[in-house]
Formats: sequence, C-alpha cells, structure tokens
Amino acid sequence: MTLTGNLLIGQRAVPGNRETIRAIDPSSNQALEPAYAGASSEQMAQACTLAWAAFDTYRETPLEQRAGFLETIAEQIEALGDALIDRAHAETGLPKARLLGERGRTCAQLRTFARVVRAGEWLDVRVDNALPERQPLPRPDLRQRQVALGPVAVFGASNFPLAFSVAGGDTASALAAGCPVVVKAHGAHPGTSELVGLAVARAVAQCELPEGVFSLLYGAGRELGIGLVTDPRIKAVGFTGSRSGGLALCQAAQARPEPIPVYAEMSAINPVFLFDGALRSRSETLAQGFVTSLTQGAGQFCTNPGLVVARQGPALEHFLVVASAHVGQAAAQTMLTPAIANAYADGVAALSENQNARCAANSLPAQGPNQCQAQLFVTTAQAFLADPTLQAEVFGAASLVVACANDEQIRQVAEHLEGQLTATLHLDEADLDSARRLLPTLERKAGRILVNGWPTGVEVSDAMVHGGPFPATSDARSTSVGTAAILRFLRPVCYQDFPDALLPGALQQANPLHLRRLLDGQREA
Amino acid sequence: MTLTGNLLIGQRAVPGNRETIRAIDPSSNQALEPAYAGASSEQMAQACTLAWAAFDTYRETPLEQRAGFLETIAEQIEALGDALIDRAHAETGLPKARLLGERGRTCAQLRTFARVVRAGEWLDVRVDNALPERQPLPRPDLRQRQVALGPVAVFGASNFPLAFSVAGGDTASALAAGCPVVVKAHGAHPGTSELVGLAVARAVAQCELPEGVFSLLYGAGRELGIGLVTDPRIKAVGFTGSRSGGLALCQAAQARPEPIPVYAEMSAINPVFLFDGALRSRSETLAQGFVTSLTQGAGQFCTNPGLVVARQGPALEHFLVVASAHVGQAAAQTMLTPAIANAYADGVAALSENQNARCAANSLPAQGPNQCQAQLFVTTAQAFLADPTLQAEVFGAASLVVACANDEQIRQVAEHLEGQLTATLHLDEADLDSARRLLPTLERKAGRILVNGWPTGVEVSDAMVHGGPFPATSDARSTSVGTAAILRFLRPVCYQDFPDALLPGALQQANPLHLRRLLDGQREA
Repeated sequence: MTLTGNLLIGQRAVPGNRETIRAIDPSSNQALEPAYAGASSEQMAQACTLAWAAFDTYRETPLEQRAGFLETIAEQIEALGDALIDRAHAETGLPKARLLGERGRTCAQLRTFARVVRAGEWLDVRVDNALPERQPLPRPDLRQRQVALGPVAVFGASNFPLAFSVAGGDTASALAAGCPVVVKAHGAHPGTSELVGLAVARAVAQCELPEGVFSLLYGAGRELGIGLVTDPRIKAVGFTGSRSGGLALCQAAQARPEPIPVYAEMSAINPVFLFDGALRSRSETLAQGFVTSLTQGAGQFCTNPGLVVARQGPALEHFLVVASAHVGQAAAQTMLTPAIANAYADGVAALSENQNARCAANSLPAQGPNQCQAQLFVTTAQAFLADPTLQAEVFGAASLVVACANDEQIRQVAEHLEGQLTATLHLDEADLDSARRLLPTLERKAGRILVNGWPTGVEVSDAMVHGGPFPATSDARSTSVGTAAILRFLRPVCYQDFPDALLPGALQQANPLHLRRLLDGQREA
Repeated sequence: MTLTGNLLIGQRAVPGNRETIRAIDPSSNQALEPAYAGASSEQMAQACTLAWAAFDTYRETPLEQRAGFLETIAEQIEALGDALIDRAHAETGLPKARLLGERGRTCAQLRTFARVVRAGEWLDVRVDNALPERQPLPRPDLRQRQVALGPVAVFGASNFPLAFSVAGGDTASALAAGCPVVVKAHGAHPGTSELVGLAVARAVAQCELPEGVFSLLYGAGRELGIGLVTDPRIKAVGFTGSRSGGLALCQAAQARPEPIPVYAEMSAINPVFLFDGALRSRSETLAQGFVTSLTQGAGQFCTNPGLVVARQGPALEHFLVVASAHVGQAAAQTMLTPAIANAYADGVAALSENQNARCAANSLPAQGPNQCQAQLFVTTAQAFLADPTLQAEVFGAASLVVACANDEQIRQVAEHLEGQLTATLHLDEADLDSARRLLPTLERKAGRILVNGWPTGVEVSDAMVHGGPFPATSDARSTSVGTAAILRFLRPVCYQDFPDALLPGALQQANPLHLRRLLDGQREA
C-alpha cells in the first residue's frame, strides 16, 4: 500500500498541480513522504462536475444498495489493516490504541448509517389522501418525502483523523442522505486521508455507483476550501474545526448567489457545574475524573471540559488541591500539529498573563516537540463575568475553575456563557432543586447536558446531540454525531395528485418500502 | 370594537412614538383611520424583554395547555365577527368572500397546530437506554427531545392579511413549538392586525400565560424590522414578502454576533409544463384553468403561475388563442396596495419593452385606482435562456409562455430556472416518459410538484410543502405552510444519565406523554 500523493477525482488518481503539503510527525517534527500537491481550481471543478453528474442517480439508489455501499466502505477501511493505523499514528501523534478505537468507531458509524438508511424513517413520508367530496373545496392527494440537498463539501477535522475526516460522520451522513461528497482532506493527515479515500473509491467501484459520488482533494491555505464552498454545484457543507475557519466558510456560503447551509462545529468550553452536595461528598473522585477527562488525548476534544463552575468554600478548595495534584503528575502529551501546539501555548500564555486568573497547576514538563502541558487556572465569578477573554476556547488540556459566591452567581455565569456543545452537572440527591433551577439556562446554552459523567465521550446513537447554539456550531438545529446527522442533508418535496406510476417508491400507494408513514394524520403502526 | 392605533407590548396597549402609518383603501386611495404610530426602539426592546422573560415558562407549558391556547386564539378571532372582515376588506381590497375563506383557513390552521402539539411527534423523542455491560465501553443513558429556539420575530405578509399575518402560519407554528412571538404588522393592514392582535392578547390572558408570549408592533420603513432581527433575544425569524426585503433580513441575521435562522419566503414564478399529449387532447380546458389560476386574487399569490413551458406547434398555438381570449375577457382587479400596483405596472412595462417577449393578451381596462390588468406574454426558449430578466417575478396576474423547439429545450429551460415554490405538470398517459425524464430537475428546483392541477391552492396539511430552493425561500429545508412548519422553530437537546426526577416529562422512563419514541433503535408501536 504505497502512498502516491494523488488526488482522487472520482475514480481517477491524479497529481495536483498547486502548492504541496506534507504531513509532519508531531513527535519529531519530521516531514513525512510523499508530498501532496494541492488541487487546482480546474481539478476542484472536475470533482464538483462529477459529483453533480452523479447526484440525480445516487440520490435515487435503492435503500438496500446505498446501505450496502456504506457497509462496503467500512469493509474497505478495515481491509487497510495496520498500514492505516501506522500512518495515522505517524501523522497525528495519537496513540495506536486510540486510533484502533477510532477506526472501530468510524466503521461502526458507517454501519449505523446503513441501518438508518434501510429503516427509512429519515424519508419522513407523509401522505394526505385526496378528499374529493370535501366542502367547500376538495383536498388533492398530497405526498411528502425528503430528498437529498445535493453534493456536499466535507472538511476533514484534525482531531479525529478517522471518525471526523474522509469517511467520518459528515461523509457517512451525507452519503446516507443521498448526497455525493467532495472531501477537502485536512492538511495534517494527508496520508491517512489518501488511504481512506482509496478505500471509499474502491467501495464506489465495487458497488457500481457513479464515480462522482466521492472525490478527495488536498490544498494548502483557504483557497481550495472557499472554492469548494462557493462552487454552484455544492449544496451544503460539513466542517469541524476552528471558529475563524468555520465563520469564513459560513460567510462565503452566505455570499453565494444561492446561499447554502454550512454545518460548522467550531468552539466550546463545555462547562462543568459541581453542586455543593456532590462536591462535599466526593470531591476527590470528582477531581480525578475531571483531570482524566481534561487530559484525555491531550485535551484535543471538542467536548473537553474547559470550564468548572462551583461555589467557593472548603469543598471546592479540596477539589482544587486534589485536581492540582493529579494535573501535576500528568505527563505532557504530543499534540496533533505544531500549529495546534503553538496555539495552545499562546492560549495558556494569555491566561497566565491575565491578572484575573491564577495558575493552580501544570503537568510535567514536555519531553519532546509539540507537547501539551495540562494547565489548571482559577478565577472568580466576578472576574469571569467582567472579562470575555476568559471564555475563549484554549484547544488542549487547559481548564479554568470559576469560584462563585452563591447559587445566583452560578446562574449568572451560566447565563453569561456562549453557546456550548455540552454542559455537565455533578450532583447528589440534595442538589436536585439547584440543578432544576439551572436547567432552563443550560437547555438554552448547550446541545447535550450530562449528569454525573464527563463530556469527552460522544456516543454514536439515535439520541446523541453533538451540536449546540452558536458559536459551538453554526446551526443549533442539527447534530453532527449520531443518526440524526442525516437530517442535515435533506429537504422536503411534496407531490400533488401524482399518478402512482410517476411517484418515487417511498410515496407509492402500496408502500413498497414498508415505511411507517404519517397517513391522513395518523402514524402507521 | 373601536380601533385605537395602539401597539400591544404584552398585555399593555400603548401608542407608539415614531412616524405614523395609515392604511389606504386601495379601491379608493382613501386613507383609513386611525393612524398607527411606529414603535420606538425602546418599545421594541420592551416587547423582546417580555418575550424573553416568557420563554422558559412558555416553552415548558403542558401540551394540552398550549394546544388549548391555539384553539382559544381561533375562538377569539371568530368572536371578532364582521368587524374583522369589514376592516380587512377596506384595507386590502380583497373580496369579502375570499376574506371569509381566509379567516376559516386561519382558524383551521390554529386548530391543526393544536392537534399537532397534542400528538407530540414534533418532540422527536429518542431514547437509548444505558448499556452498562457493553464492551469495550459502557453506553450511557441518552435521551433526546426537541426544544423551542426562543422568541420569534414574525413579519406579516401583505397578500394574506389573516392566514399569513398576525395570527397566521408563522405565528401559529412558532407558538406551537413553544416560542413567544413578536409580530411586526404589515403596514398595509394595521387595523386588521390590531383586531387580530387583540384577539391573541385576549387568548394569552384567558389561558393565563405570561404576557410576553405575544406582542404586536407597527413601524414604517425597515428600521423596526432590522431592529427586531438584530435584537439578541430574538432567535428566529418568519417572513413572507419581497426578495429584497427577505434578503435584507437574512443579511442582518447573519451579521449578528449570534447568527439566527431566517425563514423568508420570497419569490417564485411557479413554472407550468404542458406536455404534448395533454396539450393536444385538452388545450381549451388547460387554457381556461390556467387563466382562472393566473387571475385569481389579481394574481397576488406566491404560487401564481407566472411561467408556462411547452413545445411549439399547433396545440400550443391553440392554447394561446384560447388563453388570450379568456385573459381578454377578464375584469381588472384591485390590488392590495398602491405600491404593489405600481410594481406590477413596472414589471409589465419591462416585459412590454423587452424585444424578446411579445404581449399576447391583456385583460379589460382598469375601472378604478390600483387595478391589475392581467397580461400574457410569449417568448422562445432561446430568448428565455439568454435573458435572465425574463425570469424575474412580476407579482400579479402576468405570465410568460415559453415556446420550446423540443423536449431538450424544455429540459434546458427547467434546468435554467431559479428555485421555485412549485412546478406543475399537465400530462396524459402518453406523456409519462417525458415527465419522468423532467422530474429529477424539478425535484431539485421546487418544493411542490403538481400533476394536472394549478399551483394557487395551498392546502394546510401534513404533506404540504410551501417552500423551495433559493430564492423561493431562504431555507429549502423547511415549509411555511402545513404541519411540518413547526419543525422550523426547534432544536435537539440530549440528556445524558439524567435521574428521572430531573428529566422533562417527554423523556421520563414511564413515558407519561404516551409518545411513540425511537426506543433503542426501534419505533414504538
């Protein structure tokens, strides 16, 4: 399995002819072969042309064929074997055990969407039979289904080189919805991207789908990304990354002659609220759990707990002492890229220099390049409320503890927060009333609210929400993880008084797909 | 029932203190009493403050209470009796029979949303029970429901003074979702708006809801509208109106520190495709049906058939002769406002002066001010494809017939169209293959596709889609008519490992709301 550095424009593997990028092993700062030449605007246009040509066919593939395609992608990724794990490890510095887990998650995610495609609930079929005798006017026959939006541009994320990259959640859900996908590979792991891209391309061929269903492009800087988002054949965008990157794509998408939806998952500090009862009864357990969550994967999770909010007092003091001790014993960890390590250092420096925050602990010193030393800072509610820079995300294993004078200050801090992916409550029975009072605020602020857990685990399931109010995402009406992610790439179409022979299968009177339709106002059993 | 000219800021009726507007009877150009003074920015902020204060309470009202509120609004509107119809007639020039029908539709729409609220499917409850024994990691308990977005700004539409105005589809669906509503009344029917606003306010009081659930504001120009859309407490916008107005709101909403969704229904020309078989077998019936649809309500429907596409030849010639005769016998009709009548005259003048279009017919001359003479123009596919001004919407009873050389030109014309609310096919058995070939294009272009009907009727039902790709609307993923309109004002929230006592009723393990949940991947019967 030799890497070539080629783009994948449909089934054609061709070299790009723009500036090259090369992966860096962050543990050594060594550049990795091969070089990946960026796609020219013509090559990007070719990929979009192929995607557009494939769209009308692909969006009407039988559900079974489409589900089989997703499963075939999973098989092809598994068939890459150790080569994939080895390359991802070299490109990201992530431990192999974590990457094995992430591969499992990626393939399970594809198979989950295969199940979703087969079940067909996402078609949201609604049938209102004609009422020709109704007074004063007859009702026509009306049938609604969901159709795919069109080709989707997917931007690979740096922090999940498998599960949120080339064949990750955005790609899986877009393909499930019936949308061809053009991926812009993340520049930090082009080799991993090529391997997975080849796996997807093999699945396209094996399932005899139009080649434009999938393309993979590389590109330095923002030119390729903005080009993709403004191409008239691209109809939606999936992105996980920085706030500035996400906002740039949103602005480009809105400035198009035909604006399109952008699903950008951007930034969050994921507040953790420690209620008095819980803090008093188990501050040591909480401190340990918190530091484990904070330092997992060098803190490079969108759901990393970057903020702790609690009432000041002896219990919080004890929590801080124990958490500081755990942070102090934690080893520094290699971050994904030099740029991320630099940004983390900058963010930590800004907090260190902020007179409103005090550094309570930092982990063991770095043993190599691009390492992240975990950091714990402390501030007061008063300072937090007055200084907006204190809620800027520091991507990595840094967290800020906000000590509050009373419940009302805790509520004020919660109300003051920007939109979040998650909010976490640690509580005992005695804290239920306090939690109940805080809940309406948190429901307005976050996409997921946890009790007595830690936010860094994100299950791929029906009920998961990995999303939230701006700036956590650009569109709080959606989730990028879990089966509801498919709904992002669909729009409703109504068919009025169609002869059965002209209707798509999902809407035909005999219900050949065996869907549970909303039939004349009643859900079918 | 004396009109006061007052704003409704929650339960307080107070005079505005900005520039006044006065309704004009378009049939006489007479100004109507009273004057409506615009809301100041402070008054607007008061309405938004009240809406925000009401939000957390209102969004958690029991479904039965919320449904009862919608039904009470309908009762209070009916209790306005003839005064409402008389005032709406004076302000809009619309016939009383039409307004009676529209009142019926408005109240039925509110009662339909009451049914939707009670059924609770919109909560989209998903429950993934914990799997504590799962390897390698246990699964937490995950529960998802939909929650309301927040206070919604609703802009009344000129062309439906009841069904898409103060208590119209946007307001009904936002209230159903649990969102307080601040309405900006349309300046063309402030008296109608005040009457309906008082009816809603009475329902708020009768149902003992927080007063901020509903406010009604007036304002000249765009200042109030932009102010509402940029108020930080407003979280979504519903609008029906012009393309320039809708785009201005979209831009303002995107430029906020926290961007919000805008559901703007803007412009469409609603193409009608006449296939050969249908045209040959019943060109006279088609011509009559077309002109009836074209001239209904002086053409002032969003779904007015402004474009006819067919193959040139004797059958189309005959259709044109008969349609021209019907247009020629049609009486001119009073339009909604002087501004709309002027814009219609401008649009018709532009088509008349366009060398690529020929005027085939116009209706009887105007007998009073602000009247619309129906107009029928003809052009070729070649000209249509070359001249983008030919697909500009002319709001009113004007339509353009595009004569095509062959099926391929018909397809090119369809592919060349901007996004549409509707597309209509007239076909016989022999046309099915041609229709089938065109359908994929139309599915990409329109929110609703009709066979052998006319687009001007829009049913309020489960399967209706009144929406479509840009610029028909700003968000093709939604409909503004029909029960799915409620989905526009919701977002998902996931609750992880919550004790039952802290969960909202919809998610409690005993399922007290008797919802058909998606439970561990299976839909409950």
